[in-house]
Amino acid sequence: MADGRELFYFDDATVGREVLPDTRDLPVVEHGSTMRFDVLTGEWVTIAAHRMDRTFLPPADHCPLCPTQPGREPSEIPAPDYDVVVFENRFPSFAQTTTQVEPNVDGMALWPQRPATGRCEVVCFTSDHSSSFAALTESRVRTVIEAWADRTAALSAMPGVEQVFPFENRGKEIGVTLDHPHGQIYAYPFVTPRTASLITRAGAHRQRTGRDLMGDVLDAERKAGTRVVLDGEHWTAFVPAAARWPVEAHLVPHRAVPDIAALHEEERAELAVLYRDLLGRLNRYFGEPGDLPYISGWHQAPVHTGRDLTRLHLQLFSLRRAPGKLKYLAGSESGMAAWVNDAAPETIAERLRGAV
Amino acid sequence: MADGRELFYFDDATVGREVLPDTRDLPVVEHGSTMRFDVLTGEWVTIAAHRMDRTFLPPADHCPLCPTQPGREPSEIPAPDYDVVVFENRFPSFAQTTTQVEPNVDGMALWPQRPATGRCEVVCFTSDHSSSFAALTESRVRTVIEAWADRTAALSAMPGVEQVFPFENRGKEIGVTLDHPHGQIYAYPFVTPRTASLITRAGAHRQRTGRDLMGDVLDAERKAGTRVVLDGEHWTAFVPAAARWPVEAHLVPHRAVPDIAALHEEERAELAVLYRDLLGRLNRYFGEPGDLPYISGWHQAPVHTGRDLTRLHLQLFSLRRAPGKLKYLAGSESGMAAWVNDAAPETIAERLRGAV
Repeated sequence: MADGRELFYFDDATVGREVLPDTRDLPVVEHGSTMRFDVLTGEWVTIAAHRMDRTFLPPADHCPLCPTQPGREPSEIPAPDYDVVVFENRFPSFAQTTTQVEPNVDGMALWPQRPATGRCEVVCFTSDHSSSFAALTESRVRTVIEAWADRTAALSAMPGVEQVFPFENRGKEIGVTLDHPHGQIYAYPFVTPRTASLITRAGAHRQRTGRDLMGDVLDAERKAGTRVVLDGEHWTAFVPAAARWPVEAHLVPHRAVPDIAALHEEERAELAVLYRDLLGRLNRYFGEPGDLPYISGWHQAPVHTGRDLTRLHLQLFSLRRAPGKLKYLAGSESGMAAWVNDAAPETIAERLRGAV
Repeated sequence: MADGRELFYFDDATVGREVLPDTRDLPVVEHGSTMRFDVLTGEWVTIAAHRMDRTFLPPADHCPLCPTQPGREPSEIPAPDYDVVVFENRFPSFAQTTTQVEPNVDGMALWPQRPATGRCEVVCFTSDHSSSFAALTESRVRTVIEAWADRTAALSAMPGVEQVFPFENRGKEIGVTLDHPHGQIYAYPFVTPRTASLITRAGAHRQRTGRDLMGDVLDAERKAGTRVVLDGEHWTAFVPAAARWPVEAHLVPHRAVPDIAALHEEERAELAVLYRDLLGRLNRYFGEPGDLPYISGWHQAPVHTGRDLTRLHLQLFSLRRAPGKLKYLAGSESGMAAWVNDAAPETIAERLRGAV
């Protein structure tokens, strides 16, 4: 790209894709993110003040994720069309940087800080501005899976990257700032708090039982059956027994694989079918097909630690608790991290099974 | 109350308050909440399906938190006026219950569950429907503090209660379902995940240094000064070095007290002044005085464990990142618990200091 950022095309079929030069006069991305250690909780918090001015819901004819059309202002993608494209975020929370920061905030040993090294990428699922992931063809979903696998492997090899997280935020209700169907990939310079917690628990389970915690949960869900939504040859989708969100499902591979890059051909093929099916059920959850806001996140094993303790799984959830009503993370959730769910997990599963 | 719930009046001055009988024909509150153990994270999640139908933004002339007026439908408060009133929530996430539940979900040892024993109370700060906490008189704030102290002591003595959390959600943007100025108190049957994490960290710090972690943080903030907003004789308000929210401040007592009930007279008096001051600064944060949505939570030590390891402190934050723009908890925060803050903590402190 004109400012030196990387961009990758992934096509459904190998064709001679027309690619144009990026003619824009773009300043190099300023990246001043730091990570600060929260001594009270033991978690890293990223401070990314430059992101305050990021692009916010531009009109459709200025969409930076549409292909570049003749006669229009160039978008982020210098091609007249594309299938799937991945590029570095212009407003990254994490980036490869040589910026130096003081090792401690205010010189106090209590508060370590570091540059927020890593990478943030944008994944455009289609060139069609008004489409959605659920509306993609199965072969396009396969292409997205290939892009996730490819980028997971590449980002995992970058210096300083400890965990790779492909995810999609969908809907204005959860703060999406661009309408065009897209996801993101965060390559974090630390193991995220959720994953750290999973690894601690899975390690204790392994020590106590010699067994794999996520595998035991999968077996128990399939045996109980009360919360299973889809049961394939390589994957099972279920509502977790202690679901936190008014609509939530996990999609878990039967084989203990650390990340998307490690999935074999048959697993990828079935994933394309089941993930599309699951997103469709989410959209029909409240009766008439609608555009349900959701967050979909691929939990992958960290790059360097605990790879045998945690397993690839998708967490898909919506904060809509009824038509026109959202679940908010208020005092109990945001202040205390104590979750109250107004929906019973078995009821969520029943509705998802019925949302054909 | 007509359905057997408890209600308590707290008055600014001792006067002969007129109290009427509750004449409503109310069914006894149905409470079917359960807690399920999330084996992957080690946290309890509360399932409260009966709360789905709770009262949602009623018109002002049907406000259940206004005093009962002649000729109108009776509200929750059977009195023609009040100063501060506390009563049991009609749609509680936690309540004293004799309901039995199976010890495990689907009979699987992986998924312990228990009745969600505890209590949820509503705290009305004023009978004036259109007021706000920031607009209360200093003597009214004192009365609210007395109510918090009294209820913290009473709830801590109830069977099964492990932690008491007084908090206020303010603003439609964070999902407040009743406009009337009010807060809540949750009496949890477990130590909340945030507090459990603080205690683990503080225990390790104590073992390593023999010192009090929260005290060390307070000392470091006062010494550095860069994030201090208000520095009193008994309390200091500062923006934490690793702040997670676009506007965030902590108000911490200089003395290591476990909860509000343990505050002495001078501490309560200064708290009334400083908390009111802090809320006013929050309201003026974006220039013109406005009704900034916020969450304000009193982190208190658990009732039975770690009381010497964690200290009472207030966490006050807003999810507004700019006028008309909110911070959303999307993929990174909601999926991975990895926080990215678009605002630098020192800038937040500077703005709060200037918002006189």
